[in-house]
Amino acid sequence: MDKQLLEQLTPEEQKLLLDVLFTQHYALELISCELADIENGNKQVEEERYKQLMHLYYRIREETM
Amino acid sequence: MDKQLLEQLTPEEQKLLLDVLFTQHYALELISCELADIENGNKQVEEERYKQLMHLYYRIREETM
Repeated sequence: MDKQLLEQLTPEEQKLLLDVLFTQHYALELISCELADIENGNKQVEEERYKQLMHLYYRIREETM
Repeated sequence: MDKQLLEQLTPEEQKLLLDVLFTQHYALELISCELADIENGNKQVEEERYKQLMHLYYRIREETM
């Protein structure tokens, strides 16, 4: 259900969501939750997605330190 | 700092973040936090932004009920 919902949002709504994600300082926490789900086996993803998430995590963490 | 960081992310990274936001079922919670900050005076925003957030909140809530 959720992926369809994301596609239904306008680019402006998607941008607003991303903006709130950063103003609430929750981007890093969000990625950590996803990585934790993957690493403890609760979620199976493609290797490529896992690498993208790790890359994004370190990129944001570096920028916010 | 955060807004700059958002602009530095590639469209693919922004899409990945949004995707995780929805797979973690956190979009509604995130907007609620922002609305709460505005409504209890911790954050000042333009009237237009507040309306956009309210509209987005009800849209996502309806889709996920």
